[in-house]
Amino acid sequence: MESTNKYPSRSESATAGKPIRCKAAICRKAGEALVIEEIEVAPPRAWEVRIKILCTSLCHTDITFWKLDIGPASGFPKILGHEAVGVVESVGEYVEEVKEGDIVLPVFFANCEECRDCKSEKSNCCSKFKETKNYHGMPRDGTSRFKDLHGQTIKHFLAVSSFAQFTVVDIAHLVDIGSHIPIDKACLLGCGVSTEGARLRKASKVIGVDLNPNKFEIGKKFGVTHFINPTNCKDKSVTEVIKELTDGGADYCFECIGLASLVQDAFTSCREGWGRTIVLGVEMHGTPISLHSYEILRGKTVTGSLFGGIKPKSDIPLLAQKYIDKELNLDEFISHEVRFHEINEAFDLLLQGKSIRCIIWMD
Amino acid sequence: MESTNKYPSRSESATAGKPIRCKAAICRKAGEALVIEEIEVAPPRAWEVRIKILCTSLCHTDITFWKLDIGPASGFPKILGHEAVGVVESVGEYVEEVKEGDIVLPVFFANCEECRDCKSEKSNCCSKFKETKNYHGMPRDGTSRFKDLHGQTIKHFLAVSSFAQFTVVDIAHLVDIGSHIPIDKACLLGCGVSTEGARLRKASKVIGVDLNPNKFEIGKKFGVTHFINPTNCKDKSVTEVIKELTDGGADYCFECIGLASLVQDAFTSCREGWGRTIVLGVEMHGTPISLHSYEILRGKTVTGSLFGGIKPKSDIPLLAQKYIDKELNLDEFISHEVRFHEINEAFDLLLQGKSIRCIIWMD
Ligand SMILES: [Zn+2]
Ligand SMILES: [Zn+2]
Ligand SMILES: [Zn+2]
Ligand SMILES: [Zn+2]
Repeated sequence: MESTNKYPSRSESATAGKPIRCKAAICRKAGEALVIEEIEVAPPRAWEVRIKILCTSLCHTDITFWKLDIGPASGFPKILGHEAVGVVESVGEYVEEVKEGDIVLPVFFANCEECRDCKSEKSNCCSKFKETKNYHGMPRDGTSRFKDLHGQTIKHFLAVSSFAQFTVVDIAHLVDIGSHIPIDKACLLGCGVSTEGARLRKASKVIGVDLNPNKFEIGKKFGVTHFINPTNCKDKSVTEVIKELTDGGADYCFECIGLASLVQDAFTSCREGWGRTIVLGVEMHGTPISLHSYEILRGKTVTGSLFGGIKPKSDIPLLAQKYIDKELNLDEFISHEVRFHEINEAFDLLLQGKSIRCIIWMD
Repeated sequence: MESTNKYPSRSESATAGKPIRCKAAICRKAGEALVIEEIEVAPPRAWEVRIKILCTSLCHTDITFWKLDIGPASGFPKILGHEAVGVVESVGEYVEEVKEGDIVLPVFFANCEECRDCKSEKSNCCSKFKETKNYHGMPRDGTSRFKDLHGQTIKHFLAVSSFAQFTVVDIAHLVDIGSHIPIDKACLLGCGVSTEGARLRKASKVIGVDLNPNKFEIGKKFGVTHFINPTNCKDKSVTEVIKELTDGGADYCFECIGLASLVQDAFTSCREGWGRTIVLGVEMHGTPISLHSYEILRGKTVTGSLFGGIKPKSDIPLLAQKYIDKELNLDEFISHEVRFHEINEAFDLLLQGKSIRCIIWMD
């Protein structure tokens, strides 16, 4: 791993405009081990950029979609992966923001910089390119740039698909990250840190709730002071335990999994009068959240945010600078590293609750 | 009506410590006209105050409970009324905050000034005396101070029961309003203005939604710029019409009725990215509010408040002063006046959507 990254700045890549043959870790069926295969990556179309992935990391969202076998967001064969750093190989028509050789961070969360939301300081949810618009292809036309050597189309994932040596990403999903931050650290800025880094400022108690006891030791590093394992609560509910620990309810409850029932538990666990429940996890089953009106009337608030409430293009470079200035600790997030051909080990580590982030280095 | 109020300050009322026989408008059955009858009002117990009602007003909440024939909040015979001004007749043990002859405002929303919520600046929801604790009696012991001349117990309502010449109110539900503000205007500070006065500051469009076309003319006086009558929306939903008027959704949606389905409509009608739904109406049926998780993740917020988010004892006197200083317009709220024996006319006017607030003057 290099602390600064230098890549040759060429006037024109030899591969520009042509399909590239390379390796990808393909998920052919829900929940099955990924298979590393040869694929063909088409050249970028207008507003698209083809990038060579340098490293990528695995997060719970990959696991969620890897397992998902129903609904419009399910579909195989697919190339997963949405946290990565790459170098621009070639750009499509109209792309002026980045050029060949630039170090870039693909982001699943769009930032077109043109829509009313992108122009507003109040929102970070681009209304031109919603995550739900095209589950399996490029954001603008919905088509795929991947096929296997039998000619079968391989689906994209969250507009990134970084578990491949090359991928194609829309310019609305790309951040120019520069070469000052180590790429494995930068990688985490594409999702994990922005979402999970919702830091509790001056909180006297930070209570973590998880079924996995390994999480307590990990959680301590990030400021968790109390840990509740629902399986050890005996005759009490998690909500009752939280209310006891907080003298009536927590000031803030964060739901990070994306289950409607847990949002409801979080809502019940927060304090009447001022408690806020913040939804951060994406509910993949479409189950609605059911809340008691009276608790809302008594001053409880429910809100949520995608991508930690930040705008990728303007805010990720600021987070990178904070890391360089030692104001943001990213090193602690990286618990493991594997090589690309060992990618299924990264899955095992996360499924067993042993890793926070495992960096996957491309071969 | 007097613009300043002078009442004799006696050392001890002749009736103190004894039951008082007086008239009350009793609701004997859900939805039936009130009947003015003689009742007996017991003396105040510890922390209680017996007051002579001077005037009272009718609001939608009275109508809601007048109609309510199921659930724990239902129950008859009952004395309705929760917006009123009175004069202290006598006080129970430990009451030091007010004395005989003081002009007071009973408030359905408690403010004990001792609990964690009352002491916090973040909450206005007293956790010692919740509205749901004792639906039919006094806040501390749940018993009634009213009986009819056959000895039958008459139920209290929202800790106030102002549709009677005398009532007994807990000191936690009483505000010393002083004698500088006209009592009919002061009356409105006990509920209506605090809840309904959620003013929209600098809003370019204020859209009112109501089934009653009479409400448009009334609404104009309070700043409503657009009016939607759901029955005139043809093939469009109210939500679609609001989204068209606001280019994608409203910044703030207020639900004032208390129906879970309308809260959901309000939530759908507010803008992704930053829209806030504020619940102000009390859902009496216990129906939960069902919300789509994904819309919360895309930046929508649901919150609510009882009593306009203000603390009765400290904030109502400030509102009264604002009226005196001509910064708060209360006059426009009073559309009708009747005498006590005409109280059923006040019900008809409100049911027909003809009145905003009808003042009922005690005989
Ligand atoms: Zn946008
Ligand atoms: Zn992620
Ligand atoms: Zn209190
Ligand atoms: Zn009222």
